[in-house]
Amino acid sequence: MVKKSRAAGRHFLQIPGPSPIPERIQQAMSRQILDHRGPEFAELATRVLRKLKTIFQTQSTVFIFPSSGTGAWEQALVNTLSPGDKVLMAETGHFAVLWRAMAENLGLEVKFLPMDWRTGVDANLIEKELRSDTSHTIKAVCMVHNETSTGCVTNIPQIRSALNATGHPALLMVDTISSVGAMDYRHDEWEVDVSIGGSQKGMMMPPGLSFSAVSPKALECSQNTCFPRSYWSWPEMNAGLDVGAFPYTPATGLIYGLDEAINLITEEGFEATFARHERLAKATRAAVSAWGLETQCRKDTDHSPAVTAVRMPDGINADAFRAHVLSTFNMSLGAGLGKVAGRVFRIGHLGDTNELTILGALAGVEMGLQNMGLSQARGGVEAAMASFSEAQSKATEKAA
Amino acid sequence: MVKKSRAAGRHFLQIPGPSPIPERIQQAMSRQILDHRGPEFAELATRVLRKLKTIFQTQSTVFIFPSSGTGAWEQALVNTLSPGDKVLMAETGHFAVLWRAMAENLGLEVKFLPMDWRTGVDANLIEKELRSDTSHTIKAVCMVHNETSTGCVTNIPQIRSALNATGHPALLMVDTISSVGAMDYRHDEWEVDVSIGGSQKGMMMPPGLSFSAVSPKALECSQNTCFPRSYWSWPEMNAGLDVGAFPYTPATGLIYGLDEAINLITEEGFEATFARHERLAKATRAAVSAWGLETQCRKDTDHSPAVTAVRMPDGINADAFRAHVLSTFNMSLGAGLGKVAGRVFRIGHLGDTNELTILGALAGVEMGLQNMGLSQARGGVEAAMASFSEAQSKATEKAA
Amino acid sequence: MVKKSRAAGRHFLQIPGPSPIPERIQQAMSRQILDHRGPEFAELATRVLRKLKTIFQTQSTVFIFPSSGTGAWEQALVNTLSPGDKVLMAETGHFAVLWRAMAENLGLEVKFLPMDWRTGVDANLIEKELRSDTSHTIKAVCMVHNETSTGCVTNIPQIRSALNATGHPALLMVDTISSVGAMDYRHDEWEVDVSIGGSQKGMMMPPGLSFSAVSPKALECSQNTCFPRSYWSWPEMNAGLDVGAFPYTPATGLIYGLDEAINLITEEGFEATFARHERLAKATRAAVSAWGLETQCRKDTDHSPAVTAVRMPDGINADAFRAHVLSTFNMSLGAGLGKVAGRVFRIGHLGDTNELTILGALAGVEMGLQNMGLSQARGGVEAAMASFSEAQSKATEKAA
Amino acid sequence: MVKKSRAAGRHFLQIPGPSPIPERIQQAMSRQILDHRGPEFAELATRVLRKLKTIFQTQSTVFIFPSSGTGAWEQALVNTLSPGDKVLMAETGHFAVLWRAMAENLGLEVKFLPMDWRTGVDANLIEKELRSDTSHTIKAVCMVHNETSTGCVTNIPQIRSALNATGHPALLMVDTISSVGAMDYRHDEWEVDVSIGGSQKGMMMPPGLSFSAVSPKALECSQNTCFPRSYWSWPEMNAGLDVGAFPYTPATGLIYGLDEAINLITEEGFEATFARHERLAKATRAAVSAWGLETQCRKDTDHSPAVTAVRMPDGINADAFRAHVLSTFNMSLGAGLGKVAGRVFRIGHLGDTNELTILGALAGVEMGLQNMGLSQARGGVEAAMASFSEAQSKATEKAA
Repeated sequence: MVKKSRAAGRHFLQIPGPSPIPERIQQAMSRQILDHRGPEFAELATRVLRKLKTIFQTQSTVFIFPSSGTGAWEQALVNTLSPGDKVLMAETGHFAVLWRAMAENLGLEVKFLPMDWRTGVDANLIEKELRSDTSHTIKAVCMVHNETSTGCVTNIPQIRSALNATGHPALLMVDTISSVGAMDYRHDEWEVDVSIGGSQKGMMMPPGLSFSAVSPKALECSQNTCFPRSYWSWPEMNAGLDVGAFPYTPATGLIYGLDEAINLITEEGFEATFARHERLAKATRAAVSAWGLETQCRKDTDHSPAVTAVRMPDGINADAFRAHVLSTFNMSLGAGLGKVAGRVFRIGHLGDTNELTILGALAGVEMGLQNMGLSQARGGVEAAMASFSEAQSKATEKAA
Repeated sequence: MVKKSRAAGRHFLQIPGPSPIPERIQQAMSRQILDHRGPEFAELATRVLRKLKTIFQTQSTVFIFPSSGTGAWEQALVNTLSPGDKVLMAETGHFAVLWRAMAENLGLEVKFLPMDWRTGVDANLIEKELRSDTSHTIKAVCMVHNETSTGCVTNIPQIRSALNATGHPALLMVDTISSVGAMDYRHDEWEVDVSIGGSQKGMMMPPGLSFSAVSPKALECSQNTCFPRSYWSWPEMNAGLDVGAFPYTPATGLIYGLDEAINLITEEGFEATFARHERLAKATRAAVSAWGLETQCRKDTDHSPAVTAVRMPDGINADAFRAHVLSTFNMSLGAGLGKVAGRVFRIGHLGDTNELTILGALAGVEMGLQNMGLSQARGGVEAAMASFSEAQSKATEKAA
Repeated sequence: MVKKSRAAGRHFLQIPGPSPIPERIQQAMSRQILDHRGPEFAELATRVLRKLKTIFQTQSTVFIFPSSGTGAWEQALVNTLSPGDKVLMAETGHFAVLWRAMAENLGLEVKFLPMDWRTGVDANLIEKELRSDTSHTIKAVCMVHNETSTGCVTNIPQIRSALNATGHPALLMVDTISSVGAMDYRHDEWEVDVSIGGSQKGMMMPPGLSFSAVSPKALECSQNTCFPRSYWSWPEMNAGLDVGAFPYTPATGLIYGLDEAINLITEEGFEATFARHERLAKATRAAVSAWGLETQCRKDTDHSPAVTAVRMPDGINADAFRAHVLSTFNMSLGAGLGKVAGRVFRIGHLGDTNELTILGALAGVEMGLQNMGLSQARGGVEAAMASFSEAQSKATEKAA
Repeated sequence: MVKKSRAAGRHFLQIPGPSPIPERIQQAMSRQILDHRGPEFAELATRVLRKLKTIFQTQSTVFIFPSSGTGAWEQALVNTLSPGDKVLMAETGHFAVLWRAMAENLGLEVKFLPMDWRTGVDANLIEKELRSDTSHTIKAVCMVHNETSTGCVTNIPQIRSALNATGHPALLMVDTISSVGAMDYRHDEWEVDVSIGGSQKGMMMPPGLSFSAVSPKALECSQNTCFPRSYWSWPEMNAGLDVGAFPYTPATGLIYGLDEAINLITEEGFEATFARHERLAKATRAAVSAWGLETQCRKDTDHSPAVTAVRMPDGINADAFRAHVLSTFNMSLGAGLGKVAGRVFRIGHLGDTNELTILGALAGVEMGLQNMGLSQARGGVEAAMASFSEAQSKATEKAA
């Protein structure tokens, strides 16, 4: 194979996770490994678990598993349900489809509400389903908070309201893998039963850790589930956590990083962090609009602060475009997944990023689109800059 | 809390894993994260999977899971068996006990051969069990190659012979978590069906990855198992591996490190690596003997090259001793686990270590034992040095 | 002091050096330190010195000093001249002024040609000076190749021609601190006697190392100079270099990095590296022009590929602007130095950088200018993108 | 060249500097580079300079130069003296010889007291010299505090007393390159005029920075010296230090590390740090004595806490021994320098090290000596352990 010439300068990693790892996290993870049964780790683990609760805005139990986010889906299901149980899901996009497949693989019965992959979940539909389930056969409602494949957000408080309005006892489980750390998420206030997160998106870490926040109700379920399980068992995991002891070797190197990741978010401030994500997302959408393209998300209230999926015009393959951008501009964009493969590309603007990085990224998209023959694709960076200026003006006014 | 004064100098991490991470692996892992769906990762993943086969000395399929070694136990069981199946295990020590508990949690029936935690498994007993199982109700024989809690090795080729001698069709599954990379292990030659490894011991990595090598026969089983599973599913994991695609986000940062870890072993040479472990283990046992103490392993042929468990005399608590050594000499020793807790301590000598490090460690043990009132504990370092000299003489003779 | 909120995302370090350090160099420098008198270092040092010659395009002697670039100026002067000697310099900008001050501090007599800080040196003026120096009292002509304070390049081959045309025996010394690695530089072909470089600009390293390439003629001078010197002594430094031995402890950590820095340049290719710098510089100038601003360099042939100095309109303080950009956009721009302090800011585009980074940086400048009330400052990023597109078209044509 | 097999495990770097770099310092230095003219660096620089004063136990001015320690010698001389001035030095060992050569190279007249390289300087001899210098032609007394080539310490307070007793106005300059950070050093209390330090020994950093602490008297001298100088000029360096501004680009990456290095020493505590060095040195000497060898230092009061030089018996080449130890045990020992080359080897026990590391190192020396045919070399590690036990008993008694 001919060795390609070195691509100079910083790679622009604009996929919707893994997001670029800040230097301070990299340094934290470069510590020599330690004895996970010793006093130093016990102190680290209890501290990290305590801090992780603030990220989910919860007083409940949180868990850290050495697994991908997919593993967290599985632990949520097998700890609270039994084979044959019925769950309610909605087809927000590719990840909802995958979660459903997992549920079915595990032997659950899935009521899967059809959707067109271009909005978050309509809480009215959920309410309708729950209302008609008078015998309470639905054991859990499983929602993807931020559907990473489409850039659509589901309003979780509204889903909670649907449950409450109908007095339905189903558990509420939420996939926050690409939302937690990037947008406001309130496990307790929204009365979520199981919130599922991952390390490599809003948390700015490498992949390899999954998180879950678990309500007392869900935790109680885990005592009685009929799923055979061991690795994912909450009771086993929970047994020693108050003294920082795990039932098996934790991924200590990543936990060093998590400790620092939460510091970073705390130092910037939750509100500032979320506002930054909104600002970057809005500017990105301004660019998309200037290019005359459509975002995959077609509902104003549902746009994701973490990722923007862009629909390619007919005749241009989104993957060919991404390959061109990678080789020409040293930038990775997210692929369209599942049924929008080749027709959508995604711009990640989550984690440790900022205005100038996003403007550089948008410039790369704009030049790349032109190179693919889309001569209309102009003015996007200008529009994004204008969006930032407007945001700045508002912030200045607000401060005044 | 009063902040302790900084402990100067290098910490001696002499637990039987995680083992100290070599600088080159740390550097490899400090790379910025990459797009796990891009061409660069595809190249990395296929290369690492190919190289990982050499570590298990296999031509069969290997998998890498983002999980601890415990997760690998689970994936081995749920991919090949069905609830209610019977497996044969033997109580080599704490980890055998844990694996059995997992199997029972998952709904398997375990025939658990009692042992005294001081030897590897006697293949004759296995043969006897298999021979009496004329109806072939035993679906799998599950062995721990190197029992980390006792420092006893089970001779896997002899177990294989027991299976072959009886013509029993049970699968052979072997936990190599603390052996692979540290001692000779031959998945193909020994006709093992599932070999289970982890990143943080002989492989010199942080915890967070598990490995498995899977025979064609075991792989076929995974098509038909009745266990509900998704995360651990071999068929799902296997679907895209030939092009470096994982069914969910792999722990990319750790995979960078694994790539380099295998380079390190390859550069030293398998034979040299294994001989070094043997040499360090032998010197450690020489020290233990000089101190007038017993190793937990009482059978000469079964001593582990990776870890030596030492029995404390009555009246001295092993954990108090370890705490003293930690605070006084900045060294972590392994705890006694399960039924030998407080009565055994363990000296890890696996992974990226060498003669002088082990001698420093043994000196710390020797001084610590004396401090605990064991005045007889003298001459251990001397004995270890003599052991190294003897090994060197033999090596010189052999080379001549 | 109130702790400022954390600035998210990557800092844009757009000063004309130190330039951002690539990850591979950071990794190389994170190696544990080694014995600088041992065989491993000898091998490293001889390799690095050999490779460093390719950077200066020379077969002559090269030196590495643990010092800043300023130290390299001093070693050039004290090794080749004697107190009271006369040297010819030209006021290209701030660094020429500083070098002259050093020469005078050292007791040399400096003929300092006045210039307006907006061009490189006119070789005709040099030729005129040399021609009138019939008694050859001028012992050295000292030129700054790339004047970092103004972004003007002096054409060294033309200076050489001036020396040759007049048959003047003066040494030619060239400060390449901000040029070497970023633009074509040919120590041998251009018959330079002493070329002086530094680690932290085109070489992408932290500051702390200086380099010099020395012609045989200059090296001979160093045997006879009357300057008292020891640290900077070429004969002492040269004595053991062929076996990788330094007269005093070398900055080993930085030398690890230099080894890798040269690899990076070599892998990209010299021609590609220089073309990239030209491309980024041209796009930057296109932006400056679109904003209706002037570059400090006013001569088309003299624009620097490494840095662009921009003149602020009256009424806007360049330092206030830079402070605004730093606090608002997390970007460092270079200050105006010396007599253009407060009136010029500088955009570094040297070292390990690329199109998208420069576009992000230019976007920050554009928004910052607008925020400072310069409402005309529009269209710069657009112009830079157009410049890149044009460059790409040409490259494509050329390749076809 | 045949590629050697990888040497496993941690390299034992037991030379008397550079000493092993602690992880926290490596992490600090792995930060991305910053603008050395920006506000963040100004804060860092002023903080580090303030903290550096505590290391020298001074309220006076301190400087940081991007240079080796040798450069610091030069800056001390050229800032305070004039060509032709007379200085008093004493031949403590190789580094005293080198410093003298530098002084002579610079045109100073050196009165060099002969010594046998086996003790520190006898203050009586200094007093005698000063007393006889009635016309005060001696402008400076230059002492090496810890002579790294021999492991002998000169008692600086006694030298100061000699100056005071004679009322001689000469400046007192002290090379603390291998002492500062490793043993008690009091610039102010001992009335030293120039103290010269380096980064790579007691300070646990890579080489590349030199330090000096300068008394008001010495600083005043620097206004009037006749040495041509620029890079080393104290007045130029001093001009902007109060606002963290350097006259030329500082070695920012190393300054990150220095900041953390001082933290480490402060956290351990000065007294604890110095006591640790004494303890390790004493144990090392106990080993040397057990082997039946002599230390190069033959005066009990003068033994260095940082390094022990060991005299080889006739017939064994010390460099052959060191080469054997390097290839066999992966340990670097210090070479004999100058007139004791080949006859002495040195064991560094300074910087970030501890008991177990030194015991491992001594074990390597002991086995190496035996391998070289010195069969008497036994019991050294035992003796060192006994020395540690005794130290511990005393510490326990003292605490009680």
